[in-house]
Amino acid sequence: MSPLSSSLLNPRLSFSLKPLFLFSQSSFAPRKFQIPRQFVSAKRKTFSALASEQSSATDNGGRSGGGGRSGALSPSPVVEEVQRIDVNPPKGTRDFPPEDMRLRTWLFNHFREVSRLFGFEEVDYPVLESEVLFIRKAGEEIRDQLYCFEDRGNRRVALRPELTPSLARLVIQKGKSLSLPLKWFAIGQCWRYERMTRGRRREHYQWNMDILGLPEVTAEAELISSIVAFFKRIGITESDVGFKVSSRKVLQEVLRCYSVPENLFGKVCIIIDKIEKIPIDEIKRELNATGLSEEAIEELLQVLSIKSLTKLEEILGGAGEAVAELKELFSLAEKFGYSEWIQFDASVVRGLAYYTGIVFEGFDRQGKLRAICGGGRYDRLLSTFGGDDVPACGFGFGDAVIVELLKEKGLLPKLNLEVDNIVCALDYDLQGVAAEVATKLREKGQSVDLVLESKPLKWVFKRAARTNAQRLVLVGNTEWQKGMVGVKILSSGEQYEIKLDELE
Amino acid sequence: MSPLSSSLLNPRLSFSLKPLFLFSQSSFAPRKFQIPRQFVSAKRKTFSALASEQSSATDNGGRSGGGGRSGALSPSPVVEEVQRIDVNPPKGTRDFPPEDMRLRTWLFNHFREVSRLFGFEEVDYPVLESEVLFIRKAGEEIRDQLYCFEDRGNRRVALRPELTPSLARLVIQKGKSLSLPLKWFAIGQCWRYERMTRGRRREHYQWNMDILGLPEVTAEAELISSIVAFFKRIGITESDVGFKVSSRKVLQEVLRCYSVPENLFGKVCIIIDKIEKIPIDEIKRELNATGLSEEAIEELLQVLSIKSLTKLEEILGGAGEAVAELKELFSLAEKFGYSEWIQFDASVVRGLAYYTGIVFEGFDRQGKLRAICGGGRYDRLLSTFGGDDVPACGFGFGDAVIVELLKEKGLLPKLNLEVDNIVCALDYDLQGVAAEVATKLREKGQSVDLVLESKPLKWVFKRAARTNAQRLVLVGNTEWQKGMVGVKILSSGEQYEIKLDELE
Repeated sequence: MSPLSSSLLNPRLSFSLKPLFLFSQSSFAPRKFQIPRQFVSAKRKTFSALASEQSSATDNGGRSGGGGRSGALSPSPVVEEVQRIDVNPPKGTRDFPPEDMRLRTWLFNHFREVSRLFGFEEVDYPVLESEVLFIRKAGEEIRDQLYCFEDRGNRRVALRPELTPSLARLVIQKGKSLSLPLKWFAIGQCWRYERMTRGRRREHYQWNMDILGLPEVTAEAELISSIVAFFKRIGITESDVGFKVSSRKVLQEVLRCYSVPENLFGKVCIIIDKIEKIPIDEIKRELNATGLSEEAIEELLQVLSIKSLTKLEEILGGAGEAVAELKELFSLAEKFGYSEWIQFDASVVRGLAYYTGIVFEGFDRQGKLRAICGGGRYDRLLSTFGGDDVPACGFGFGDAVIVELLKEKGLLPKLNLEVDNIVCALDYDLQGVAAEVATKLREKGQSVDLVLESKPLKWVFKRAARTNAQRLVLVGNTEWQKGMVGVKILSSGEQYEIKLDELE
Repeated sequence: MSPLSSSLLNPRLSFSLKPLFLFSQSSFAPRKFQIPRQFVSAKRKTFSALASEQSSATDNGGRSGGGGRSGALSPSPVVEEVQRIDVNPPKGTRDFPPEDMRLRTWLFNHFREVSRLFGFEEVDYPVLESEVLFIRKAGEEIRDQLYCFEDRGNRRVALRPELTPSLARLVIQKGKSLSLPLKWFAIGQCWRYERMTRGRRREHYQWNMDILGLPEVTAEAELISSIVAFFKRIGITESDVGFKVSSRKVLQEVLRCYSVPENLFGKVCIIIDKIEKIPIDEIKRELNATGLSEEAIEELLQVLSIKSLTKLEEILGGAGEAVAELKELFSLAEKFGYSEWIQFDASVVRGLAYYTGIVFEGFDRQGKLRAICGGGRYDRLLSTFGGDDVPACGFGFGDAVIVELLKEKGLLPKLNLEVDNIVCALDYDLQGVAAEVATKLREKGQSVDLVLESKPLKWVFKRAARTNAQRLVLVGNTEWQKGMVGVKILSSGEQYEIKLDELE
């Protein structure tokens, strides 16, 4: 005899199929049940409660003993003391439980919808890229914060700190197959290994929109217009935020006068970008270290303090590219209808080495937060990767600061789980029928939270309240014999019986 | 005199504002232009063409000389020979250019919509997790393929190879604040460092649905039901795919008879999962190495070959959990309406150590592809992390094999960029007005590809064809003086003038 045939060890099912249901076998009697007034705040069935129910339901097979009958084999060695792991996500990263995920989805949907309205196509790139894509010589903050490592094949790779270099890589790769101008957007997670100060995280999602193939300032104007459209959709006005706009060509024109070599340009920009973060003497020292004369530095700092385009024109003259492009942008802003949102500010240079022309950043007018978004023109990025240059501009818009701003302004949306139906069998034997009902409703596009266990109606109402179900559909024996189900509209309390086929 | 005031070096704007437009200054004359018949296949304006236009337009400032006037400072050192980077994404990873992104979005939208119909809430976790979360002692393939490294803070971290351990971590963390059963879904990128054979990639996206807090088999039934619903939505039928279903408790009952220690259970499952991949003698050797007797191994392999639940019941007896649960599942499958999709197959054990009960996998009936999806019950996972166990089951559904299957079946959707409008100024001076028109339309929810440069109408029509624009809106001087714009419905050729305010 095979040992198997004698192995009728534990005839009891560890998961009980007994109906726990208060109304078990009862027919559906709609007038009998009432939504208890306090069910919304009633204590939820908790984890530990369930865990202990579970253990009492399963442990009496005698798993604790060394030999003899064992109730169930388990992949976890129960005799060993299991150390509880750190249940938090790694430092600087986030979980998205349902409530946070709803906010993320809401935000991303607005990003996507604005991008769609502007005729942009969505793209994405690997979150893990070759390190070389992000290593530039300008001393950017981004380089020191690179989340880089060697993979099992000894390749230097990095979690992307930004999306633009990947865009450039893909555009070079696609080459002639792309028709210009291309308008692309992406929503991708980016990583920066920062010392964790002031609650800054090491990952964030970034919405990018980029236009490639357009040398005209209309591209910048269109991009800023899309951010304005986004702000308006979520209730942010021009009294909450603004854009500071300048052009790297302003610096170029100053540096040119002092014969500063062109390959220092990126470096100088990076230093200047830190002007509000580190003491001015330190800025001067760093600029001096690149080879700039003290006279040039003073001139530079003077120009950077200019907040008026007229003043800039007085100093630089009106014929240079910087002034002409900026004037063009402000003129277009008027036509686009967002001139209230933007202002010239020569101190804006942005912290990435590759910008070549107009740069801009979104800021909160109360001055409490970091830049909300930033972007600019980067006509020379592709050649740094060995490709042919293509005129390009774009912006990045993170998912962190905007949420802070929405909180500040009391504009965070209230987002709840909402299901159309909760479907419940009045008896476990009717579970299959309830499933049939759920399937029918889902085929009609209705969402259904199907109660998969035998529970008292009181529990079902609590659950319905938590999931904001619009309708309770009850499957009872008496009704089902007539092919009918009971329905209760949860907002009004209205109740009726209806043939399953007629349930819309 | 400041050196700045003498810096009027290059009065020419490098980006031409000259209208290139064939019809420049012309009034809008709708009957004059025709869509050229061949415009769809007409040669696109290519990259290199634009790049050379660009360089001829900007390089005559004389950047090539060593000293003297330089047209523009550039962040890229032009004198150095720039090595072209590898333009491909890192080995085993993917870019998502627009056409691929549309497919991904289409797929994810179906994942999301099915999950919504089933009342599941979306969640997410960090793509970078602590390595310890994925290190189990069962010798799973997943462990050898972990994309792990040390971060700058000397923490052992890993790009997640799957989502379930993160779910378990979050559930332990949230503890009593969660109300059960919880129904969660996630769509996340997962990483496995595999030797690159047969075009397998190192990252893929995975749709997960999980139910926690339900010991009943209704949970498994509901999960399989949701996958069936997904297949149906995308045109896959029960003649294309099926589910093989078994229970780890079948193995448990066999092993129990041979007094195999319970902590070997996971290991044995992992070995058995490879049964179709490596020679049977190797399987036997590995099983033997865990301490199983030859008799036990033969018995095990015999049971694993069973494809009928009746046969299983004959051998194991009807009273054990394995048979009872499986019978319950097949009975529910009938009620849910997908019994044609599932079949019992004792050889299915799945390759993850933590499964404890019913396991299942989706397969293509032609047998050409790897498993399409897989899942099962994992009632003991939380305690391996030091948490209280909660009954749980779920599945993972990758984005790779399903696309292969859709290709095989000719079911890949045709997805094109589609914009509602292309808006174009007939003169660069009217660019601002065109922007105003675009803004108005976008505020009404219409998507607009705004032509941001001066282009001949022929080009505009080509662009409209590429973007599948439904309507061309032309802004011309004569019409605009009356507050009107020209409209051409691109499908019918119908043309008319209309007041901007009346444009819907």
